[in-house]
Amino acid sequence: MSVVGNSEWYSEICFRGSLAMSYKIKNRLHCEQSKYQKIEVIDTESVGRFLLLDGKGMVSERDEFVYHEVMAHIPYMVKPELKKVLIIGGGDGGVAREFLRHPDVERVDLIEIDERVVEVTKQFLPEVATAFADPRLNFLPMDGIEFIKGKENEYDVAIIDSTDPEDFAEGLFTKEFYASVKKSLKDDGIMMAQTENPFLDEYNLKSIYDNLRAAYPNVQSFFAPMLVYPGVFWTFAFASKGIKGNELLASKRAEMEKMQKDLKWYNMDWHEGAFKLSNIHKRVLGFED
Amino acid sequence: MSVVGNSEWYSEICFRGSLAMSYKIKNRLHCEQSKYQKIEVIDTESVGRFLLLDGKGMVSERDEFVYHEVMAHIPYMVKPELKKVLIIGGGDGGVAREFLRHPDVERVDLIEIDERVVEVTKQFLPEVATAFADPRLNFLPMDGIEFIKGKENEYDVAIIDSTDPEDFAEGLFTKEFYASVKKSLKDDGIMMAQTENPFLDEYNLKSIYDNLRAAYPNVQSFFAPMLVYPGVFWTFAFASKGIKGNELLASKRAEMEKMQKDLKWYNMDWHEGAFKLSNIHKRVLGFED
Repeated sequence: MSVVGNSEWYSEICFRGSLAMSYKIKNRLHCEQSKYQKIEVIDTESVGRFLLLDGKGMVSERDEFVYHEVMAHIPYMVKPELKKVLIIGGGDGGVAREFLRHPDVERVDLIEIDERVVEVTKQFLPEVATAFADPRLNFLPMDGIEFIKGKENEYDVAIIDSTDPEDFAEGLFTKEFYASVKKSLKDDGIMMAQTENPFLDEYNLKSIYDNLRAAYPNVQSFFAPMLVYPGVFWTFAFASKGIKGNELLASKRAEMEKMQKDLKWYNMDWHEGAFKLSNIHKRVLGFED
Repeated sequence: MSVVGNSEWYSEICFRGSLAMSYKIKNRLHCEQSKYQKIEVIDTESVGRFLLLDGKGMVSERDEFVYHEVMAHIPYMVKPELKKVLIIGGGDGGVAREFLRHPDVERVDLIEIDERVVEVTKQFLPEVATAFADPRLNFLPMDGIEFIKGKENEYDVAIIDSTDPEDFAEGLFTKEFYASVKKSLKDDGIMMAQTENPFLDEYNLKSIYDNLRAAYPNVQSFFAPMLVYPGVFWTFAFASKGIKGNELLASKRAEMEKMQKDLKWYNMDWHEGAFKLSNIHKRVLGFED
């Protein structure tokens, strides 16, 4: 589907067909129909190489670091022990890459339902997919909802790196799934997920956060821009039994002071500011004002 | 210019013709060529009524509060006395509206070169243009660069509410203009301006900030999302002879605690976080890392 008359453009239409973001195409690098979805890679002038799933923009060279850095370094900086990580979705490997910067991370279980996403990313976005060469990464091509059943007290952090809450990803936004993830976490474990744009509230963010609040005693939100996602201003959920997402550990500051020089988005100062929410952000997600 | 094949869509193309944002049009409400620019108002499904100048999106009903609230309430909360405000550009009246919420603001001089922008906003976006009914507002339809020549030690705050740094607005981003504005300010005065998107660095943000640093001892930046601006993640400049943009005055907190309940974006907690910048934001603008 395209609003663009000229075939040199790729368009993503959102918000009930009323808004579109379009990218001029330099080259179409790949297109296949996997068992689960249409997987494409285009090369664009504005955002470089760009992975699309079912016509929706997922990962671009220009901004991928934002999502991947915040998902890994925020939990790292607030949780004393972080050895075992679960990533559900995230077949591009970007979140895993950022966790694996930390030497004390011993293992990352990456549960991506569609192994073709992994293969296509390795081929066309190799800088994103470096984690797959790390022996600490354990990739299992299966359904995250099935994988997590019966897991107990196992993970320090679980990242739900999913597409939008529709089609086969819808189950990743339910109360039941959030409860399963909580069970899989250690007592001081942390769950994080992307939670869409509050200006264009296509998926009823309050209900997603209500589902989180039903499962976790501590639910917070923060924001970061995702240039290639509809509306750009993106919200993320941070959920735990107690650990706060904005209370950075003094003991990890020296290590991060060095590491953040190599990062493109994350630094500790930004981390503290990201949890200080605007009124629309709090109100749409149903937080007390 | 449009990338859209279907005429029901309005598209803004940016970043050297490589990226576009498109809005489905419900109704075209107004179109005229003024002495300075093409002025249009469209009604859209996604962002409501939307004012365009020379085909670029300026003010939409859905997100106008972000820009207008941050431009007024940030300087208000850090400067002890705030009686006299200068706004250059800003013919929609939104920034003036937010300053005029504060009873101690005695006068707002609004210097908009194109009086047709004022008239069109009054007619089609009346909730944005309420300031024009306030006797404290002094609207002068003239060139801001001419107006400010010879002004000395007069204003508490100057807001440069301009379009992009090109065509007739280019002069509003030069060293010379910033020096004139500084002269027009009282000793503890503040200048603020919108300064584009750091991911899509179309206008060389480092050079804009270098111009600011040449004129002011204290130059800071903060960010807020503008849903209808290219790339959404928007930077703003805060410049002064000494006052810091992120040091809120304890004496004003009680008043703002009440007022911020009626605001859609701004609150004091967000204000403190907005100056905590990501790495890309600092690096593109040329701040020390």
